[in-house]
Amino acid sequence: MRTSIATVSLSGSLTEKLTAASLAGFDGVEIFENDLLASPLTPEEIRARCADLGLTIDLYQPMRDVEALPEEEFGRALRRARHKFELMRRLGADTVLVCSSVSPHAVDDDALAAEQLGRLADLARDHGIRVAYEALAWGRHISTYDHAWQVVESAGHPALGTCLDSFHILSRGSDPEGIGDIPGDKIFFLQLADAPLLAMDVLQWSRHYRCFPGQGGFDVAGLLRHVLRAGYDGPLSLEVFNDVFRQSEAGPTAVDARRSLLTLQETVGLAAPPAPAPPTGVAFAELVTPDAAPVAAALGALGFARTARHRGKPVDLWQRGDARVLVNTGPAERRDGTRLAAVGLEAPDPAGAARRAEALVAPVLPRRRAPGDAPLEAVAAPDGTELFFCATERPGLPDWRADFEDVAPPSYDGEPWRVDHLSLTQPWHQFDEAALFHRAVLGLRPQESVDVADPYGLLRSRAVSTDDGAVRIVLTVGPAPTDDTAHAQHIALATDDVVAAARSYRAAGGPLLPIPANYYDDLAARFEFADGELETYRELGILYDRDAHGTFRHCYTHTVGRVFFELVQRDGGYRGYGAANAPVRLAAQHAVRGFTGG
Amino acid sequence: MRTSIATVSLSGSLTEKLTAASLAGFDGVEIFENDLLASPLTPEEIRARCADLGLTIDLYQPMRDVEALPEEEFGRALRRARHKFELMRRLGADTVLVCSSVSPHAVDDDALAAEQLGRLADLARDHGIRVAYEALAWGRHISTYDHAWQVVESAGHPALGTCLDSFHILSRGSDPEGIGDIPGDKIFFLQLADAPLLAMDVLQWSRHYRCFPGQGGFDVAGLLRHVLRAGYDGPLSLEVFNDVFRQSEAGPTAVDARRSLLTLQETVGLAAPPAPAPPTGVAFAELVTPDAAPVAAALGALGFARTARHRGKPVDLWQRGDARVLVNTGPAERRDGTRLAAVGLEAPDPAGAARRAEALVAPVLPRRRAPGDAPLEAVAAPDGTELFFCATERPGLPDWRADFEDVAPPSYDGEPWRVDHLSLTQPWHQFDEAALFHRAVLGLRPQESVDVADPYGLLRSRAVSTDDGAVRIVLTVGPAPTDDTAHAQHIALATDDVVAAARSYRAAGGPLLPIPANYYDDLAARFEFADGELETYRELGILYDRDAHGTFRHCYTHTVGRVFFELVQRDGGYRGYGAANAPVRLAAQHAVRGFTGG
Repeated sequence: MRTSIATVSLSGSLTEKLTAASLAGFDGVEIFENDLLASPLTPEEIRARCADLGLTIDLYQPMRDVEALPEEEFGRALRRARHKFELMRRLGADTVLVCSSVSPHAVDDDALAAEQLGRLADLARDHGIRVAYEALAWGRHISTYDHAWQVVESAGHPALGTCLDSFHILSRGSDPEGIGDIPGDKIFFLQLADAPLLAMDVLQWSRHYRCFPGQGGFDVAGLLRHVLRAGYDGPLSLEVFNDVFRQSEAGPTAVDARRSLLTLQETVGLAAPPAPAPPTGVAFAELVTPDAAPVAAALGALGFARTARHRGKPVDLWQRGDARVLVNTGPAERRDGTRLAAVGLEAPDPAGAARRAEALVAPVLPRRRAPGDAPLEAVAAPDGTELFFCATERPGLPDWRADFEDVAPPSYDGEPWRVDHLSLTQPWHQFDEAALFHRAVLGLRPQESVDVADPYGLLRSRAVSTDDGAVRIVLTVGPAPTDDTAHAQHIALATDDVVAAARSYRAAGGPLLPIPANYYDDLAARFEFADGELETYRELGILYDRDAHGTFRHCYTHTVGRVFFELVQRDGGYRGYGAANAPVRLAAQHAVRGFTGG
Repeated sequence: MRTSIATVSLSGSLTEKLTAASLAGFDGVEIFENDLLASPLTPEEIRARCADLGLTIDLYQPMRDVEALPEEEFGRALRRARHKFELMRRLGADTVLVCSSVSPHAVDDDALAAEQLGRLADLARDHGIRVAYEALAWGRHISTYDHAWQVVESAGHPALGTCLDSFHILSRGSDPEGIGDIPGDKIFFLQLADAPLLAMDVLQWSRHYRCFPGQGGFDVAGLLRHVLRAGYDGPLSLEVFNDVFRQSEAGPTAVDARRSLLTLQETVGLAAPPAPAPPTGVAFAELVTPDAAPVAAALGALGFARTARHRGKPVDLWQRGDARVLVNTGPAERRDGTRLAAVGLEAPDPAGAARRAEALVAPVLPRRRAPGDAPLEAVAAPDGTELFFCATERPGLPDWRADFEDVAPPSYDGEPWRVDHLSLTQPWHQFDEAALFHRAVLGLRPQESVDVADPYGLLRSRAVSTDDGAVRIVLTVGPAPTDDTAHAQHIALATDDVVAAARSYRAAGGPLLPIPANYYDDLAARFEFADGELETYRELGILYDRDAHGTFRHCYTHTVGRVFFELVQRDGGYRGYGAANAPVRLAAQHAVRGFTGG
């Protein structure tokens, strides 16, 4: 089916919006009236621009306060409509959206509404235009899709049909089952939007908080199935009013939108990209740094050994059991200190994973990073992190370590570790996009978003993981769209004995993040501990949490550039990430480092 | 009465919060538990710090989920309480806040709640501590102040009283009348917060959107009067959870908080700063610029004449009727091009206005800007704009023009103008503070806040004005706390003939902002015009709006630095500012200037 997006969903001038929609691969657009009014292009120029970009104009919208009016006011509405139909002729648009009236003069009279909509449709037909009538969730007398359809049905006009909007239907809690009973050819248009489940005024909710399907809490796929069952074959069109998208760059937003729609199409069987296969582990985390020494010191103190070096590039492999960290001192794009730049994911089928990512409009990175390198499948996440789909010691698949030459045996002191989770700072404007990306492209499952109180603003944090916890990524975003590089990323390493791990790190000269004594006094008030247990935590700066399943003990290294390490011990099936302790940890990091770095 | 603020209302570390509270003039603080837990200071050190800063610790908060529990769970709550009472002894705090239970294990049994609160109060009394029990608006079984008071009353314990919180009471729509019946000495604490009137989940509303009294929609003063009638004589304490304050600097937030509380105290008769006397007009607007030539060219084209020059500084007075613009090429603090740096307000009593401002913690500026200058009363607004309280040709008061020497007669072509309004860009974090400042300090009346769609994000805009419209200031804020200097300020000039004014400006070589033809096609659809009227607007780029009272016609000059001019004609008592046209104007400015400057 054809895909479309309303220009109001994207930021910028009308031409910027059209260009972004076209580049992201949409087939058409809905032209939002205010975007046209503010454009210096004539309707004919807009029509030509769309044609050049391969876009059809699927809808002109909205026309408001037309039906169930006193005759004199309806006359003025018809006069407005005549102007707009003439404009649409110049624009080459043949369908107009009419929203149910919110006018204080509108009367509660379905027969009058049908009669006036019929007269509007007469006028429209004379201009070769179809009228798609939609119930606004806050319409004065008509606010549900079935009511709007009753009025359209009773008007019985060939140029009058209905427009369905998933937000208006699902925000009202209407049962979409009845959609299947509307004749498909009378559904003139379908607008799709999701929204977080907020208990708030529906008008404000609609105008500021809509999001793309899959980013909110509505069952948009379920609704779409009913629409398809009815026989609808028009475009699937996204119409999203969102304060964040309004200030984001149009290009990435359009790509995010298209990925959302592709995922929705896959869910209902309208598209079949290569099937998802969630990763089975973290092969490596790659740090890019202008100066390897502090990173090497930290890894050394953590008991990692430098085991191999890339044959063609200044990249070292550090290893402790299944925890592998690449340290790359090659030319970094940004010289802003050490950062977590890439993640290697153990993919059951690396090539298939890359094909799926590409089908879902993820930017595919060059397969060979340098001449002579083994081919590596990789894509860029919305935050710019490079994600490699790779294999470690799996027969029949190329091993990413083939490009590395051993420099030392993989020996180290203590137990083998693995990566428990990675924490990546997201650009403020792309937090919802990031969660959708990790779900749709990688097959990870997003958890609930949580607020975390940093001393200088609320952070939001959302984990995405495989069901078995083999891969866990925590996406974090700062309180405002200021410099996101001010916030730290981290690598959490799983150990079976965090006390021994912390002692060993400290004995090797590694400074652990000091945690205030007040925190331990509070732990003593909240929990009962074995003799000496709390004193050990207090001595080492180990934080403690408990959920219905088990316990979580964790501590933190100092920060190098933007990156620090966390040592974690999960027991009894604890599922979280110690969010309850995050305010104390963040305050402690501020205390050590000053204002930046939280 | 003593004033206090909860540390959760301010950003930063605990010591930063305490310092800010003290500098703003608060007498005490409520210590929010999480702030203490995250602090590296011991309770004794915190106590000493507060003493050094002249702050008392009026409350330790919160203790949760204590009452109406199964005995075993209550036992654990008592165990926690014992730890906390010991902590409070070290801290020197003698009142603890207990919030009504939200525990899923709490039972609906007032007698049990009273009995357990009594046992908690026994323990508290043994530590010299008082328990202030408060109904959370989302408490499981106890969620209203009168219900909480019933339980406290039936417990009949000398160490148990109630805590009233204006948010919890007013957000539930409870009638505060009944507060007057609670014995004053049983109201152990009073927390004050306001909030915008949002239809949303009360927990989210409380945790993210509270604001200082006078910044929201609650009748906090009415509630306070009932509390005073009851005989309460404890501190007036602000407890505000707000996402914006969390990321703002603590110092300005604390000053904003104190101004809010002083204004509230004035309203209920607890404080008597010099009475407000709203300004009667705009004496001048002052532009600071590194280069006077482009400003002079614009003013010249607008028909202003350079009539005087400051005797001691590089400041020119330009004038057209009662519209006066100072052009200052002296050393600007910031060399970011031309900006609107100061406003002269005609004050009925300039010295009294300055005393009121000072009493309301506005930063008072030096009265003489240079040796030899006439004394001028001035304060800084939250956005840094200098506000001068001055007089023009008013007998018995010094004239601010005494420092100026005439250089030309005040002659100009065309009708005399005056300043219709000034538009000032506000720092994102201080939008609510700005509205309160202009209301409390200057006696201007804030209008409703409106959203304006800029192509690159929603702007918010709020006018403050005198009832007669003699002084109108529009406060505007961008979509995000990024660089607020990217947004333009403007001076709107009132004319009785905007068409003539626009023609004359254009004839003098002044470029008017071009408005898209599509806008005029839409006007033709919406309104009926006299023959040729719309063509004139189209030719000159004049925008048109209409409200219940009259019409508004306005057009825009090009932008110099951050500043542009607007020519406006109000007819028939039109009250607005043409907000409906703002999206078109903003898009047109982006089209002329590129991405910045909106």
